[in-house]
Amino acid sequence: SGLVLVKNPHLESMEEDVLYHLDLGTKTHNLPAMFGDIKFVCVGGSPNRMRAFAQFMQRELGLAAAGEDVADICAGSDRYAMYRAGPVLAVSHGMGIPSISIMLHELIKLLHHAKCRDVTIIRIGTSGGLGIEAGSVVITDTAVDSSFQPRFEQVVLDDVVVRSTELDKDLAEELLACSRDIPDFPTLIGHTMCTYDFYEGQGRLDGALCSFSSEKKLEYLRRAYDAGVRNIEMESTAFAALCGLCGLKGESCHFHLL
Amino acid sequence: SGLVLVKNPHLESMEEDVLYHLDLGTKTHNLPAMFGDIKFVCVGGSPNRMRAFAQFMQRELGLAAAGEDVADICAGSDRYAMYRAGPVLAVSHGMGIPSISIMLHELIKLLHHAKCRDVTIIRIGTSGGLGIEAGSVVITDTAVDSSFQPRFEQVVLDDVVVRSTELDKDLAEELLACSRDIPDFPTLIGHTMCTYDFYEGQGRLDGALCSFSSEKKLEYLRRAYDAGVRNIEMESTAFAALCGLCGLKGESCHFHLL
Repeated sequence: SGLVLVKNPHLESMEEDVLYHLDLGTKTHNLPAMFGDIKFVCVGGSPNRMRAFAQFMQRELGLAAAGEDVADICAGSDRYAMYRAGPVLAVSHGMGIPSISIMLHELIKLLHHAKCRDVTIIRIGTSGGLGIEAGSVVITDTAVDSSFQPRFEQVVLDDVVVRSTELDKDLAEELLACSRDIPDFPTLIGHTMCTYDFYEGQGRLDGALCSFSSEKKLEYLRRAYDAGVRNIEMESTAFAALCGLCGLKGESCHFHLL
Repeated sequence: SGLVLVKNPHLESMEEDVLYHLDLGTKTHNLPAMFGDIKFVCVGGSPNRMRAFAQFMQRELGLAAAGEDVADICAGSDRYAMYRAGPVLAVSHGMGIPSISIMLHELIKLLHHAKCRDVTIIRIGTSGGLGIEAGSVVITDTAVDSSFQPRFEQVVLDDVVVRSTELDKDLAEELLACSRDIPDFPTLIGHTMCTYDFYEGQGRLDGALCSFSSEKKLEYLRRAYDAGVRNIEMESTAFAALCGLCGLKGESCHFHLL
C-alpha cells in the first residue's frame, strides 16, 4: 500500500499521540492536511544546513524566489528543526544514534498519522572519508558498526536485539546515476561505518582522551577500508534499521568534507 | 593543582587545537582571557534552556538587569550553544551519549587550554522519574547503564573499555544541603539510569516500534527501582566517566518533569 508502518500495537488505543520533541501532535495539529502529500524526507544533523537545503529545494522546484525564508515547523521545540519545500520535508536530527532515533520514532509516527504514501527518506550528512578524495560523496549500500558488521544492536528494556542495516540498493543506484550529471563531486557506493563516539571511536588523535598511537589508528582504519568502509559517521546504522523496519525506502548519502 | 587534565599525549605537539563543534580554537581565540576565570560549568540538553539559565545566573549574581540578553559564544556553530554569566559557563549538549561526548571532549580541552582551576561541572537536565513525586529533583550518586551497572562502555577503535561512573559524593551532599532552602522541590539522592534510546530503551509504549507489553515494561522499571534507580535519562554515564577521568568535580541533577 506504500503506507508508512508503525510496529506498535499500543498506538491504536491511544487517544492522542504527542510527538513531543517535534512539538506536534494528533490533537493539536491536522497532520494529514499538513503532511499528507510529502514524498521525500531529507534528514541531516545541523538545523542551519537543513534550512539552507529547504531553501535550495524551494528554488529548484520553482516554489519561491531566491533567499526567501522557510518557516521552522517545529519552532516550539529547540530539539529539532523541520522545514518543507513542496513535497520535500527537511528535518534536523542532531548528532549520534540516540538523537536521530528520537527524531525518527516521531517522524515515522508523523508520516503514519498523516497517511503519507511511497515516502523516500534520505540522510544527507557530512562524514569522514576513508581512502577517498576530499569532496567525494559516499552513497551507503550497507551501514556497519565499529566492528565492520552490518548490524545495529538496539537495547529494548534490558535485552539486546540485533537489527539489519541494509539500505535500498535500487535507490542507491538511482542516486549514483543522478550523480553522473554533476561532474564536480566524485560519487561512489560503499559501506558507511557508524560509531558511538567522534574522538576515541573514530581514531582521532585530538580528543581530551587518547590512549592509542598514530600507528594503531592507521591499522584500524586500514582494516575498516579492507572491509569495504569508505566513510565514517554517527547515525547510519540506526537510520537504516528504523527505516527498514517501518517500510521507508531509505538511503544515506554523505559528503566527505575534508 | 586543580587544573583540568587532558589524557592525550598527542595534544602537546599540536600547533593548533580547533574545537570544531564549538567554533573556538587556540589560534583564533585567546582562551585563557575568555575563560580563565570560569569556576562552574552547567550543561544541559536544550540550547534555549541554557540561555534562560545563564540569564537567571546573571540576575542572581547581580551582573545584569532582568531580561538582558546573553550572547552565544558558539554562535558560529549550530551544534551547541554556550553562554557565560560571571564565573558560570552554560553549555548545551543535545540529546544522547554521542552528542554530549563530543561537547565534553571539546569543553575539557577548552578548560585545559584556558588554564582554569578548581572547576565544578554540573549537568542540569530533565529526566523521567521512577517512583518519585512529579517535580522532584534527583541528585545522582552513581550513574548506571540499562542493566543497572555503574559502568560506561566506551568503544575505543574496536576495543570496548569499561569506565567508572561515580560522581562526586561531597558535591552531591552539598547540593542536597542547598535544596533544603527550597521547599517547593522535593530533592533526593539516588542512582540515575542512562539509556541509548528514549522509546524502546526506556520502556515507552508510544514509539514507532514497541515489542513489549505494559506488564513487561512495569516489571523492568520495578527491577530498576529495586536496584536504586530513581530517574532515567540519556547522558549521565558518559558525563560521569569523562569528568571523572579528566579531574573535573562533577555532579548530575535532574528535574523530574512529569
